[in-house]
Amino acid sequence: MSRAGRKWEIVAGDLATPLGFRAAAAASGIKKAPGALDLALIFSDSPATQAAGVFTTNRVAAAPVLLSRRNLVESRGRCRAIVVNSGNANACTGKEGTHTAEETARAAAELLEIDPSQVLVASTGVIGVPLSPELILAQLPYLKEALSRESAAAVAQAILTTDTVSKTCVVRSVARGKPVHIAGIAKGAGMIHPHMATMLSFITTDAGMGERMLHNLLLAAVEDSFNRITVDGDTSTNDSLIALASGLAETTVVPGNESRAWFAEGLTLVCQTLAKMIARDGEGATRLVTVEVVGARSPLDAERAARAIANSPLVKTALAGANPNWGRIVCATGYSGAKFDPTRIDVSVNNLALCRKGVDAGFDDAVAHRELDQKEVLLRVDLHAGTSTANVWTCDFTRAYIDINASYRS
Amino acid sequence: MSRAGRKWEIVAGDLATPLGFRAAAAASGIKKAPGALDLALIFSDSPATQAAGVFTTNRVAAAPVLLSRRNLVESRGRCRAIVVNSGNANACTGKEGTHTAEETARAAAELLEIDPSQVLVASTGVIGVPLSPELILAQLPYLKEALSRESAAAVAQAILTTDTVSKTCVVRSVARGKPVHIAGIAKGAGMIHPHMATMLSFITTDAGMGERMLHNLLLAAVEDSFNRITVDGDTSTNDSLIALASGLAETTVVPGNESRAWFAEGLTLVCQTLAKMIARDGEGATRLVTVEVVGARSPLDAERAARAIANSPLVKTALAGANPNWGRIVCATGYSGAKFDPTRIDVSVNNLALCRKGVDAGFDDAVAHRELDQKEVLLRVDLHAGTSTANVWTCDFTRAYIDINASYRS
Repeated sequence: MSRAGRKWEIVAGDLATPLGFRAAAAASGIKKAPGALDLALIFSDSPATQAAGVFTTNRVAAAPVLLSRRNLVESRGRCRAIVVNSGNANACTGKEGTHTAEETARAAAELLEIDPSQVLVASTGVIGVPLSPELILAQLPYLKEALSRESAAAVAQAILTTDTVSKTCVVRSVARGKPVHIAGIAKGAGMIHPHMATMLSFITTDAGMGERMLHNLLLAAVEDSFNRITVDGDTSTNDSLIALASGLAETTVVPGNESRAWFAEGLTLVCQTLAKMIARDGEGATRLVTVEVVGARSPLDAERAARAIANSPLVKTALAGANPNWGRIVCATGYSGAKFDPTRIDVSVNNLALCRKGVDAGFDDAVAHRELDQKEVLLRVDLHAGTSTANVWTCDFTRAYIDINASYRS
Repeated sequence: MSRAGRKWEIVAGDLATPLGFRAAAAASGIKKAPGALDLALIFSDSPATQAAGVFTTNRVAAAPVLLSRRNLVESRGRCRAIVVNSGNANACTGKEGTHTAEETARAAAELLEIDPSQVLVASTGVIGVPLSPELILAQLPYLKEALSRESAAAVAQAILTTDTVSKTCVVRSVARGKPVHIAGIAKGAGMIHPHMATMLSFITTDAGMGERMLHNLLLAAVEDSFNRITVDGDTSTNDSLIALASGLAETTVVPGNESRAWFAEGLTLVCQTLAKMIARDGEGATRLVTVEVVGARSPLDAERAARAIANSPLVKTALAGANPNWGRIVCATGYSGAKFDPTRIDVSVNNLALCRKGVDAGFDDAVAHRELDQKEVLLRVDLHAGTSTANVWTCDFTRAYIDINASYRS
């Protein structure tokens, strides 16, 4: 592989841009709004496809999460299909919920002529409301017939709930003179918190690799992307990130090879781009906020401080008002558990110093307000306690978050 | 002490109801609103007075917190005066802030003819804005002259910031035929989180006891009161709880004696009553919510689950809308770290079952909405995993919280 071929660039596309994938979406009636897309099928044509998944750490995992975890093990990562619905999370739904997930996989497998263990299932939406299999089973034959590269773009729409925009990222590189693609879609707006966010994300690539390699690369990419965003500190019952690698690009990622670092870079780019899209689209959010902590004693200290700031409702409401309230940022850093000397901490927004050595930096209020009143804001905290850094992405906390969540039953 | 004398009852009163205390409040101009009370002096006449304090665990502790901690040590708990201001937290204010706290203690000590180490200082309000000593020093002579039992009631008003009501609790018991009192006031509405809340609280009693006894009793009472409330998960830079015991009631609390349990009960009653008042008055709150977790494997598991539920923005916004969204409660329990079987968990509001064995209990939506649409709500979660229990008090999360905190510079 030539040096020149190692760069990844973001390109237009969808889940079917990588070779070997087809998909389709349908309106099954799970969502109340007539004609709303709420069901999708993603399929990989290659029998050599490898799959890997990362799922919620919540003790209360939804039926589709439990089934997908099991199928990845049973099929030894040989999964080739994903059935995903929005509008109902099929969580806290007891034995009926398990039955629905299993029936979905069984029916899809029959239509696609693969083993039921090769089908993964994902759901998102309201918790605790029964989801009967009928609406899904009724649409599966149509979805199987509709599978195409052209209809894959609609899948990003079909997985949304309170999201205001669909989220897709495709990257392209060249290896041995041939193009290689990684594509990803995601949904998530509330219940967004590391380990993991309320979040579904599906990734396809035409690079080839073993199951363990794909899983390890996925875990590493998640650590620097989906595990670095927070909207409200709630970790949902349904979080699922699933990747399928068709291997049709004739490029194989192998351990120890520089191809591993190359592919990891592309995968992390896709995951980070999607993660930032989720933070930016946080329920009621008006801005994407990058919290960057530098000068920490250890990576853990940097992460603790960044997460405490990004999770603080007081910091996030101040951000909603574009209010340069650096005292709340210092306060959150203070209770984060990170070690630092309060008389050395600096805080800035974009390039404007708000706090120097723990006290007011003497900034102009109107200027600071203008710096904060942007679609993208960088909050930078220097602890002057070491050399470690960490980034976390979050959003502001507005009245609209309350309005959405006081009424939405999820 | 007779058995009959061991009961505590809540009575009308203020910090000067216990024998030996006088206080006064003034409008110093720290708060912008003309005539707003923002400064107070609390004084104990008895030279035998014992003092103890519990302060914020935030690494960024305000200047008055640092000084009060030091003075309690230096005077060996012989503090007799508290100077408290609202409107400015004197936090993140550097050397000038330290100077202001020290000057305040020095000037008060001179007027009261005690040692500067016998004066405690507390501040609450905006963070990071310089607080010069002038406004305080100008009022101290007036406050010293105004010290009386009659003017003590105004102190509960003078310590407020975004609070909507003042918070006072006085309890009375009888020992050896004579009355004994414990009185407390508190402030706090936002930045409320255990260890500790943004919160000032001052307690007076005419019972007598050693410094260590008072401190230990205070720690125990905090654990079951102020450390059990949460408004927004933010732990402030200024939290201070200070108790003064004059000893003038001629009742001495001694180790190992049943008088210790008796006094602890009264002190906990005062602290719990004040803590619930704080949760009820949470910024923008419309209801006081008691989260009760039962059937946990261990006390720690019970506490973890109760805190996760009480801190969840999704649970708290659902409470704002009186929305019986038990799925979010189960979800928060699931990520709390508490061990339980998701197919055994029960959730109820007041006495109405919302979730049984992890699935919908089949309740009537309108009835559930009515149960939730109350000034006081009990959320009960039974993990069916053991016999441990824990209570945490919180409030709902409304648009008004956002409005208050998007603009208020604290």
